[in-house]
Amino acid sequence: MQHKSFRNMSCPIARSLERVGEWWSMLIMRDALFGLRRFDEFQRSLGIAPNMLARRLNALVDAGLLERHRYSLHPPRDEYRPTQRGRDFRSVLIALLAFGNRHFAPEGTSVAIVDAQSGVEAEPIVVDRATGRPIREPEFAWVPGPAAGERTRQRYARRPQPAAPPPRAEPDQRTIRKGSRK
Amino acid sequence: MQHKSFRNMSCPIARSLERVGEWWSMLIMRDALFGLRRFDEFQRSLGIAPNMLARRLNALVDAGLLERHRYSLHPPRDEYRPTQRGRDFRSVLIALLAFGNRHFAPEGTSVAIVDAQSGVEAEPIVVDRATGRPIREPEFAWVPGPAAGERTRQRYARRPQPAAPPPRAEPDQRTIRKGSRK
Repeated sequence: MQHKSFRNMSCPIARSLERVGEWWSMLIMRDALFGLRRFDEFQRSLGIAPNMLARRLNALVDAGLLERHRYSLHPPRDEYRPTQRGRDFRSVLIALLAFGNRHFAPEGTSVAIVDAQSGVEAEPIVVDRATGRPIREPEFAWVPGPAAGERTRQRYARRPQPAAPPPRAEPDQRTIRKGSRK
Repeated sequence: MQHKSFRNMSCPIARSLERVGEWWSMLIMRDALFGLRRFDEFQRSLGIAPNMLARRLNALVDAGLLERHRYSLHPPRDEYRPTQRGRDFRSVLIALLAFGNRHFAPEGTSVAIVDAQSGVEAEPIVVDRATGRPIREPEFAWVPGPAAGERTRQRYARRPQPAAPPPRAEPDQRTIRKGSRK
């Protein structure tokens, strides 16, 4: 993908989107994590043009989310398996699923996440691993990290009014600090 | 966006992506939730062509993630504010941020989420709200919901080997069941 905003590359969201930010790529990862492996399986599931599918699979292999494994020598055929990085992408898909179920499923959910033992439906939320507290404003804030460039620091320094109620901490307190973790 | 896979529309991930699945749309939401409001602010931040930006902003208003507010009559000028639905999208951006920080930030994080009081860096994970348990396989499974169509049910019925170790429950137990929630 050629995007002018590659200039903003230090943003971790932009970096993720650079690798998997295309509609098809996310749906391919959804299918791969569901268990699909072969070119024709993806094609049947997605109804995607073969050249587009080949391009997207190559990009996901290049980005380290899928691995190619040859399952037939004659004719040569590869299957695609999620890597650890690809499996980590599941959290993004879960967030998209929860968002879609909440906002774009007026007739009820068509896909849900349930406790595999009890069958009780889960409600996915994002929390901090160490404390279990929901990550939301104003309790949590986005700040420049140790590797932030000048552009990112300036951006946060002149931050406009936030979308949610303002954080309680003063801006100059909101620098990153590695804390004690259990 | 015109995508052939709109046929798959019952999937909540596809439905979310239909509304916000475009690269620019996600970065516009990132900026809107950061506090940017005005056309020229988004344009400066993203380096996006004006016609593309106008199209994306209109789509996000149509999808109910942003609201238009007129802040100047002469000349007519609108600003764009996140709705509740737009604020809910933050969980998707947090998942993308965590994924990007984990996998595409070899030089260290450039943007981090921290406790606004203590400055301690958070590690975002997705858990079930009621039980606090991390949502992952095999403890949790994706299953057809009450509104699933024939296509979705068939898809899950002939599910191939999963990407992670198989869930412990038998497939016929893995139906959705509303549980007691606090």
